[in-house]
Amino acid sequence: MLQAPPAQPGMREDEIDTPALLIDIDALEFNLDRMAALLARTGTKLRAHAKTHKSPVIAKLQMARGAVGQCVQKVAEAEVLAWGGIPDILVSNEVVGATKLARLCALAKIARIAVCADDAAQVSALESAAESAGIRLPVLVEIDVGAARCGVAPGPDAVALAQRIAASRHLSFGGLQAYHGSAQHKRTIAERRTMIQGAVDASRRTIEQLHQQGLDCPIVGGAGTGTFEIESISGVYTEMQAGSYVFMDADYARNLDESGAPVHTFRHALFVLATVMSAPKRGLAVLDAGHKAVAVDSGLPLVWQRPDIRYVSASDEHGKLDIGSETTMPTLGEKMRLVPGHCDPTVDRYDWYVGVRGGRVECVWPVAARGGMS
Amino acid sequence: MLQAPPAQPGMREDEIDTPALLIDIDALEFNLDRMAALLARTGTKLRAHAKTHKSPVIAKLQMARGAVGQCVQKVAEAEVLAWGGIPDILVSNEVVGATKLARLCALAKIARIAVCADDAAQVSALESAAESAGIRLPVLVEIDVGAARCGVAPGPDAVALAQRIAASRHLSFGGLQAYHGSAQHKRTIAERRTMIQGAVDASRRTIEQLHQQGLDCPIVGGAGTGTFEIESISGVYTEMQAGSYVFMDADYARNLDESGAPVHTFRHALFVLATVMSAPKRGLAVLDAGHKAVAVDSGLPLVWQRPDIRYVSASDEHGKLDIGSETTMPTLGEKMRLVPGHCDPTVDRYDWYVGVRGGRVECVWPVAARGGMS
Repeated sequence: MLQAPPAQPGMREDEIDTPALLIDIDALEFNLDRMAALLARTGTKLRAHAKTHKSPVIAKLQMARGAVGQCVQKVAEAEVLAWGGIPDILVSNEVVGATKLARLCALAKIARIAVCADDAAQVSALESAAESAGIRLPVLVEIDVGAARCGVAPGPDAVALAQRIAASRHLSFGGLQAYHGSAQHKRTIAERRTMIQGAVDASRRTIEQLHQQGLDCPIVGGAGTGTFEIESISGVYTEMQAGSYVFMDADYARNLDESGAPVHTFRHALFVLATVMSAPKRGLAVLDAGHKAVAVDSGLPLVWQRPDIRYVSASDEHGKLDIGSETTMPTLGEKMRLVPGHCDPTVDRYDWYVGVRGGRVECVWPVAARGGMS
Repeated sequence: MLQAPPAQPGMREDEIDTPALLIDIDALEFNLDRMAALLARTGTKLRAHAKTHKSPVIAKLQMARGAVGQCVQKVAEAEVLAWGGIPDILVSNEVVGATKLARLCALAKIARIAVCADDAAQVSALESAAESAGIRLPVLVEIDVGAARCGVAPGPDAVALAQRIAASRHLSFGGLQAYHGSAQHKRTIAERRTMIQGAVDASRRTIEQLHQQGLDCPIVGGAGTGTFEIESISGVYTEMQAGSYVFMDADYARNLDESGAPVHTFRHALFVLATVMSAPKRGLAVLDAGHKAVAVDSGLPLVWQRPDIRYVSASDEHGKLDIGSETTMPTLGEKMRLVPGHCDPTVDRYDWYVGVRGGRVECVWPVAARGGMS
């Protein structure tokens, strides 16, 4: 069942029903502009990751500022973006199974679609699906640059797979997918630099070996919000796949910069608005937002601009607050903004975004690809 | 956007698109029957918690076996059940805010609706909402029996609140809500008994004090899957609010019985079906089910009936598997069932249940109240 949105444009923020997923539109625009400005100085382009926002509306805001396209992780996300008019989509992931591949190839009639592979059997399956659909599908080889998840080894294994793709009648070799996921949340800049330098070296070596075999490498994609400033000046990567930068979350805000201070490149633009539903005794209040309303996989949420109040535990539908002894106890019905520990899975729990500016609801947007599991 | 279901009745299990939320219908029916049989020997009734399943279909299966009604945590869940024909619903939680209270009271025209309170200000708000709607609303006093979350102190505070409810023209005193959440997952039966004995004593004392003030206590509600066998023979509790028993999850299955062995009262009936999407090297395979597909707040999922394969880490859309050295490597496209660490928030990520029996899809049911945040 599609749920009704928790607000309407024009309402005051304190009239929004809770829990609700808020976007601070000023902060969102700041983040969008800032990323565009940062990448403009480099030779790289943004292919923003839509697994964060799941929204053609936000994808269009990114593309209006120069993004060349979008990344997604799922065919269902690619569908929602393509149906919403996004012209260039990379599934930065493997897609396995004939049903999903048929859906993916069908999209190639209305948008430029590319996908990744890390296995010869997948290349055969992709060739077969592309042939059935009567299309030619660009396929990137995913290489494991350190995250030890998907991806073939850089170097000869990657080259062999690229040759297999290039030799397939209905596929073309699209380049390398070289995302280093586990580097994104390393706290010190030194750790992040070391890990990404390894990814850069592995990618460069693979590109050279591809060239030796007569294969050009149109795209080298990777990077996230935690590391894109490193990949973007590497001279090797061409497309930055950052997603979380649009919203920022409490966990990314724990990354440190050169001086050892928290990185403040982007602003918190995503919040869960919650209501105090119980305040049974001195020092304890309970919000109506537990872990069904805010993801806790990367830590508990923070109470926005209230260092005297700590969110100390989440159950399904309750968030317990520890109220500092100097702090006036909140009253029932009081609303608070939470900064999620992790933005992507928090967004994935909601059907609607409520965009606010200057204390008023400016817009209500669907989280259009939510629930698109496959 | 409502997503298409990942299967149709009649399909083979291996044809279901993934990730998908499976119900083993045989195991579900076993659990439903077992709970009914266990409670039949006691003086208590089941008021099953629908926050687990969010489905009027499953609620009706529970009521057909003698449940007196359903519990919910949210007005949105109460709406979906009432609209689906469930006649008796307790919001086992506080509801704060005029908008939500108006929605709640509107439901009282089509079902018996009750709600909890733990604050005098809430009683006033409930009275006002019930008056506006022209109804009389039963209100239970939530007491804190040890979980230190919502609820007034047992004893005089609870009695004072009950008197205030009873004195309100459009409210009636419905009884006590005495759920001990933090006892549910204590591993040893001795710990669970000690904690629930405290809850029983606090409830009994409060009931006696209510009687001294001339107040009858129609319902004493509480208990969950981890402890209902204790409350149900206490002579104090009247309604058992277990929810997870219908599905069971990996975390509840870590509770121990009298002999120190894992409790096996109920069977695992809920699974996430996932596909191997990458198998890049010996010992490592990757499933298409990460923490957007399976809740990890109470631990990682287990691979069903495959002790030689461990699910070792979850990212947004990937689950990494450690494949034992004696085990044949899985092939791309191979499907595996996962037992979620925590069933309630796993269900909350999906739009559809796929019910399977004998290797075939028997039914497809909506997770009807999913997304009902408020």
